[in-house]
Amino acid sequence: MELKITRPTLLLDENKMLANLQRMLEKAERTGTELIPHFKTHQSKEIGQLIKEKGVKKITVSSMKMAEYFAQNGWNDITVAFPFNPLEIDVANQLIEQGGALTILVSDPAVVSILAGRFSGKVNVLVEVDAGYNRSGIDSAETDLIKSLLTELKEDAYMDFYGLYCHPGNTYQTDNIEEIRQIWAAAIKKVNGLKNAILPLAPDLKVRMGDTPGCTVVEDMDGVDEIGPGNFIFYDLVMNYLNVCDESDIAVAVACPVVAKYEERNQIVVHGGAVHFSKDHLFDDQERKFFGELVILAEDGWSQIISEAKLTSLSQEHGVLTVNQETFNTIQIGDVLGFLPIHSCLTANLLKSYLTLDGKVYEHLENS
Amino acid sequence: MELKITRPTLLLDENKMLANLQRMLEKAERTGTELIPHFKTHQSKEIGQLIKEKGVKKITVSSMKMAEYFAQNGWNDITVAFPFNPLEIDVANQLIEQGGALTILVSDPAVVSILAGRFSGKVNVLVEVDAGYNRSGIDSAETDLIKSLLTELKEDAYMDFYGLYCHPGNTYQTDNIEEIRQIWAAAIKKVNGLKNAILPLAPDLKVRMGDTPGCTVVEDMDGVDEIGPGNFIFYDLVMNYLNVCDESDIAVAVACPVVAKYEERNQIVVHGGAVHFSKDHLFDDQERKFFGELVILAEDGWSQIISEAKLTSLSQEHGVLTVNQETFNTIQIGDVLGFLPIHSCLTANLLKSYLTLDGKVYEHLENS
Repeated sequence: MELKITRPTLLLDENKMLANLQRMLEKAERTGTELIPHFKTHQSKEIGQLIKEKGVKKITVSSMKMAEYFAQNGWNDITVAFPFNPLEIDVANQLIEQGGALTILVSDPAVVSILAGRFSGKVNVLVEVDAGYNRSGIDSAETDLIKSLLTELKEDAYMDFYGLYCHPGNTYQTDNIEEIRQIWAAAIKKVNGLKNAILPLAPDLKVRMGDTPGCTVVEDMDGVDEIGPGNFIFYDLVMNYLNVCDESDIAVAVACPVVAKYEERNQIVVHGGAVHFSKDHLFDDQERKFFGELVILAEDGWSQIISEAKLTSLSQEHGVLTVNQETFNTIQIGDVLGFLPIHSCLTANLLKSYLTLDGKVYEHLENS
Repeated sequence: MELKITRPTLLLDENKMLANLQRMLEKAERTGTELIPHFKTHQSKEIGQLIKEKGVKKITVSSMKMAEYFAQNGWNDITVAFPFNPLEIDVANQLIEQGGALTILVSDPAVVSILAGRFSGKVNVLVEVDAGYNRSGIDSAETDLIKSLLTELKEDAYMDFYGLYCHPGNTYQTDNIEEIRQIWAAAIKKVNGLKNAILPLAPDLKVRMGDTPGCTVVEDMDGVDEIGPGNFIFYDLVMNYLNVCDESDIAVAVACPVVAKYEERNQIVVHGGAVHFSKDHLFDDQERKFFGELVILAEDGWSQIISEAKLTSLSQEHGVLTVNQETFNTIQIGDVLGFLPIHSCLTANLLKSYLTLDGKVYEHLENS
């Protein structure tokens, strides 16, 4: 690689990223859904622009701050897929007054009463349905509650019911693709049951499903109108360990300088710690925690994973790489090593910018 | 609290912070050591200024980027307590040419040969000694190796041996204060053994010891000249769980808006996730993972910990607070709750600014 890297740096392989995007666009076409990608993963105006050039017009974000950022950067149809925070009503109204379409998430029925009469223009409302993840959303069995919510929304001059949103994030806690498909099948069944029950009240309602594992591996999306995955744009080791992606699909790697070697314990210290990778981790087949996997950087990207070499501990700035003797001998102080991240969203959020393989720098929203 | 908070915000109680500083200054005086505080915890020019006003003249940081930042903000005696990265020689030389005193860490003897003849002015060299933590540093038993390193340093026009640095970070992995004291006693013994062996070669050498747990609870610092703790300025739940600090010493709390309530599972969703807290966690007495503890915000700060209420899961922006029925009933959507962080350094690095109780905003270095 001809890039001059002297500090921990997030490398972006744009070809891999665009291939990930292309596959998800094809998935949407094949399943008859619309891809409304979640931008929380990259939080970058330049990456957003590349996605726009592929025909995407509507996006998802997870905070009003991200909504403001992407609205400033030319996006005018934004869903904030996070339980709407009534304390941010002024920000929402500013976005509405700027003329873009804003879609908010209602995850607790009490929020609708709090918001009644407080919007200054039209806002779309997605009702978040919980189909078993137990993070946020109204239980999908609560048909009557959701019906009364629709009545309440109709009484408001500006809140328009848009549809049902379901993020079955429990797919991240599975061990394999088959379990992911089962979770989705169960979630789709529940959401469609609810949809059919309320369809007479809202014949135009849309169903949107989130999460990268499901959107990647599920083919049967009957009743789903829109998909909103985020992580797929980069993928990461969590997705690779679930077999949701191949390791060659992972589009980001952290470049870290080697600063010390300890032969007696076959460990190498790199500049790359918890403030670069985050503390997210996986466990190897002997239940040992690790924080990243080694790849060798080259001019055109990086190698396959060197599977015996893992980042076995992180402190604030230090990463400790444990390797075998053969790998140990090939690495020298002053080398720059690559590491695939456990969780690309958190790693990108920490490193705050991207360096493409041909040397372009893309920004990341400063703090989310 | 009269502060208008609508988003996740890091609150700073300056009185608690200054009391923590005062106690550490008194500890230094009592033990005959000099406090050279580690600024990696706050990374803030304004907080640095408050520390300077208490008479501190020398500081420690953990990256060249932080060294640049604090040099720009009026500090002229800076130790970079991270294994020196030869790829950053140009930055080091720029700092040296600006006239400040720069102290670097040598944690692998090979670095000295790489750096020979490459500095453009005087640089102090602290040799990092590993007394059992096994992260970085030269094994404290390697007396001959360190002697030959001193000879090598003497041959260089600009690299001046300053002393021995030991960060016994294994104190963080203990269960109680007694173990911390034992680790320090063992580390001090090893470092002093090495010091006595090399003293004829370097009669003015200083011994510096790091880490907040040890600097807080150890009184017997015989042979130690300087202490470099960082976390003590804020402390956090890790320090509280080790009984290194009282919960009332913790000087930062994350303010998070309540966005949804789920009575059937006694859970409350707040805006406050992995991009605000980090994924660092502790385990409660039933081995359940948690990511922060609840405090009630008031005009003059915050309450004691509500011990039954814990952040039991985090995703990127969501925090799930699990509480008992009584607490559940007292919390409403639109409230702003406080949470003490597991690891204040990582939390501050994510939130990137501080709001004091009287409404001042202090910056945090953008990305480290």
